[in-house]
Amino acid sequence: MHCDAVKSRVCGTGCHKNLATSIRTSIIKLPGSDGSRSDAADTYCESWRLAVETNNAGAWDVLPSSCVDSVARYFNGDQYGSDYYVIVDYALAFAKTVKISGDGKDVWIFDIDETLLTNIGYYRAHGYGSEPFDSKSFNEWVVQGTAPAFAASLRMYNALKKLGFTIILLTGRDEDQRSFTEANLRDVGYSGWERLILRGPDDQGKSATNYKLEQRSKLIDQGFKIHGNTGDQWSDLLGFAVADRSFKVPNPMHYIP
Amino acid sequence: MHCDAVKSRVCGTGCHKNLATSIRTSIIKLPGSDGSRSDAADTYCESWRLAVETNNAGAWDVLPSSCVDSVARYFNGDQYGSDYYVIVDYALAFAKTVKISGDGKDVWIFDIDETLLTNIGYYRAHGYGSEPFDSKSFNEWVVQGTAPAFAASLRMYNALKKLGFTIILLTGRDEDQRSFTEANLRDVGYSGWERLILRGPDDQGKSATNYKLEQRSKLIDQGFKIHGNTGDQWSDLLGFAVADRSFKVPNPMHYIP
Repeated sequence: MHCDAVKSRVCGTGCHKNLATSIRTSIIKLPGSDGSRSDAADTYCESWRLAVETNNAGAWDVLPSSCVDSVARYFNGDQYGSDYYVIVDYALAFAKTVKISGDGKDVWIFDIDETLLTNIGYYRAHGYGSEPFDSKSFNEWVVQGTAPAFAASLRMYNALKKLGFTIILLTGRDEDQRSFTEANLRDVGYSGWERLILRGPDDQGKSATNYKLEQRSKLIDQGFKIHGNTGDQWSDLLGFAVADRSFKVPNPMHYIP
Repeated sequence: MHCDAVKSRVCGTGCHKNLATSIRTSIIKLPGSDGSRSDAADTYCESWRLAVETNNAGAWDVLPSSCVDSVARYFNGDQYGSDYYVIVDYALAFAKTVKISGDGKDVWIFDIDETLLTNIGYYRAHGYGSEPFDSKSFNEWVVQGTAPAFAASLRMYNALKKLGFTIILLTGRDEDQRSFTEANLRDVGYSGWERLILRGPDDQGKSATNYKLEQRSKLIDQGFKIHGNTGDQWSDLLGFAVADRSFKVPNPMHYIP
């Protein structure tokens, strides 16, 4: 691909530095240019992760095997925590602008898995999402009730409670997982939610998008105002009866339709 | 923040490596750990950019001054081009699943600035978006009609034409900029669009979101089916009469409401 704007007027990958300026920027050392890992693979995997987080990727199956190392580094380094922290700052800045009526109808919705609780221990043992999702082994993990909280989500949760929001938890977990889900949440510091909504018998087989938008619609019918919504999946956030502001927290490990 | 899951059950920034596993991953060398730039600033700026691209940031004013160097590296290195390229691959994969009826009503919408054409030459001279937007100097740049095309968007544009999509360009530029906008687009390789919709007298003062959703609604009223939409701003993509699939291309330089 030509990179000289004067010649081709088309700008290809990495050519922006040549456009409309005679000042060449110095060569930047890229991640991995010390030989520790592949520049090209890292660059692609970061692009893939951005495509997933922005929903440009749409439905996707499993993490590309070439990106397992990159996603592992993302979780095990500082970037993931920083990404979550910055989102919480934006969410709380918005939350502080909401006028709380005092009637208990001002709602913030949270998803649970990969939003309030982290199952990274499970996913680490299963290729960070590069293996096809196995509901049996995941449920065996869930019933242990040992999933830690995210520090950033606990900070968000407690700050929203303090601001006067009614907290509603809306999860794709099944109703028969209620008791140890509640125990797990309490064990790691969450308390004071108004409702914990799990999939009932009528919700089986529904996509997460449809199940969750139906539940949000019911809340609106009951007079709740859904100001904010936080989830790691676009299916937590999109469809009808959406929140005034939705906050997508990162999850490059799996896609739930 | 405690990072030991056994002790605190709360996972803070950078602590995932300690969770639910006794295998400590090796310390990963982060970008900038060679002293060329600040790890913490880079990590924050990547988080900020992700928050912007996912719309978690909502409305924002100017690029944080601490992130000018990070955004400059993003544009001048390989990542931006790679990000755009991966989005195009996803867009074309979706486009190939669309059944084209042959009546000319199957539409793909493109925004222009920072989507088909790059004004990076202008923004590089104005702090990559860290200076407040100055419409006068930007319009002086636009009338020169010298904005290059993105290689990736030209590839997407031509592939969509070949698949049989009707291409409609929907831009926030004013009607009186039609002639040199058309000339600029043709000069850099775009051709064969069905319509170029610019802001008319009735559209002045409207937010980009409202102006664009009104124009999309009119297209739907005229029998067009909007299958795809590509833009660098969420105001290109959200609201009513949205496309079946929307593709957000990166732009960490400015926000248009």
